[in-house]
Amino acid sequence: MKEQSVKKKKKVQEGKSKILYETDNEELYILEFKDSAVTLYGTKTGVVKEKSKINNQISSHFFSYLESYHVPTHFVKPFSGNSMVIKKLEMIPVEVFMRNYAAGNMVKKYGVEEGKELDHPVLEYYLKGDEKQDPMVNEHHIVAFEYATAEELKQIERLAKKTNAVLKSFFYRRNIVLVEFKLKFGRNKSGKITLADEISPDTCRLWNIESEDKLNKKKFMPGKDKAIEAYEEVLSRVFKSS
Amino acid sequence: MKEQSVKKKKKVQEGKSKILYETDNEELYILEFKDSAVTLYGTKTGVVKEKSKINNQISSHFFSYLESYHVPTHFVKPFSGNSMVIKKLEMIPVEVFMRNYAAGNMVKKYGVEEGKELDHPVLEYYLKGDEKQDPMVNEHHIVAFEYATAEELKQIERLAKKTNAVLKSFFYRRNIVLVEFKLKFGRNKSGKITLADEISPDTCRLWNIESEDKLNKKKFMPGKDKAIEAYEEVLSRVFKSS
Repeated sequence: MKEQSVKKKKKVQEGKSKILYETDNEELYILEFKDSAVTLYGTKTGVVKEKSKINNQISSHFFSYLESYHVPTHFVKPFSGNSMVIKKLEMIPVEVFMRNYAAGNMVKKYGVEEGKELDHPVLEYYLKGDEKQDPMVNEHHIVAFEYATAEELKQIERLAKKTNAVLKSFFYRRNIVLVEFKLKFGRNKSGKITLADEISPDTCRLWNIESEDKLNKKKFMPGKDKAIEAYEEVLSRVFKSS
Repeated sequence: MKEQSVKKKKKVQEGKSKILYETDNEELYILEFKDSAVTLYGTKTGVVKEKSKINNQISSHFFSYLESYHVPTHFVKPFSGNSMVIKKLEMIPVEVFMRNYAAGNMVKKYGVEEGKELDHPVLEYYLKGDEKQDPMVNEHHIVAFEYATAEELKQIERLAKKTNAVLKSFFYRRNIVLVEFKLKFGRNKSGKITLADEISPDTCRLWNIESEDKLNKKKFMPGKDKAIEAYEEVLSRVFKSS
């Protein structure tokens, strides 16, 4: 794609933490981050000033980084401090969770010990649907409900596992444990499965590796008492040596 | 296995609807059905006299029938009116649901229309655990929690789909729709994945096909107002022409 300026047009959609705008190029959108903080499971937790810029920087960085590992993403280029130009995708209405350690829902639902490292990364699919409280589904539901084909799910699983391996190792080198995170995927104009949405402290559960005691790991999760300091800490570690 | 009498020894385990006994042969158990009725999702609904004999007859029939389609089962031979001789297995603590039409949990959780035929059969795994209300899991959880290997899960999926195809067609020829049912599996002494538990009106949701109006299908589910008549009706249809 040639370097050329993109013009922001009217708002297409506004979510809890991001706004989507049309542009003068019908294949591109502008994705703008908001300052409202949302937990990993989608609960709003207030406003954290300047957070939008940090999430935009971190997400842009990870999308470029993942592209270098041949993970196709919707990222095109930065647009402003808190927004990026992205490819328009046909979104698959399913959230993909990858879990490396037991935390959050996994502890509540299955009684696994908090902080236990899982022998194999666990991939979970959830339907987006506020009314039904994001019910978990498996690949058979997704195919039966016609959200994606079995072939597309194979691609999604492959890309989610690769993204996990790349990010886990990236964070590990910065003394951060990637406990769990969520991803969304869509189809690009030629139907290719493409990583979308964001990868930021709002969509990842991150623990500091430094504390020797596993269970006393300082949590980086935003929206708790740490708020902006947590985002800034992740930002500084992400850009430490890259 | 040579025909020889098996002697019933002490009780090993008693569940809501069945009792397991040791025998004088250390590779065999006796599985005895109880008259207490249990819904598909495990709720007790009272006592239905003589039901144990019907469930034993139907289960024995289906296990033999499935063996003829090369589905390995734990069934060895009848023992008494309400019990059968089975192979001792190492059980996998997961319930496998197969759904052909939307009903029950599928309607409640995903808002699918009751009675809708699913384009593809949906397979679901649930952990048994009364405390945690049988949470749904997927194959990644099962492998991470070490309940079964990925290779064993492939076998389980293959056998569950085959069992579904065989039973669906069997019931269809008797004017019954196999809406959904559940299965349990174990490993035999050489580690082979083997179908276990029971296949009866207590573990299947069956609808009468005769009514033209899909939504007014008479339900065969026991434990409702029909009770023993429903079991007898299924029994007579199962043995109609076989």
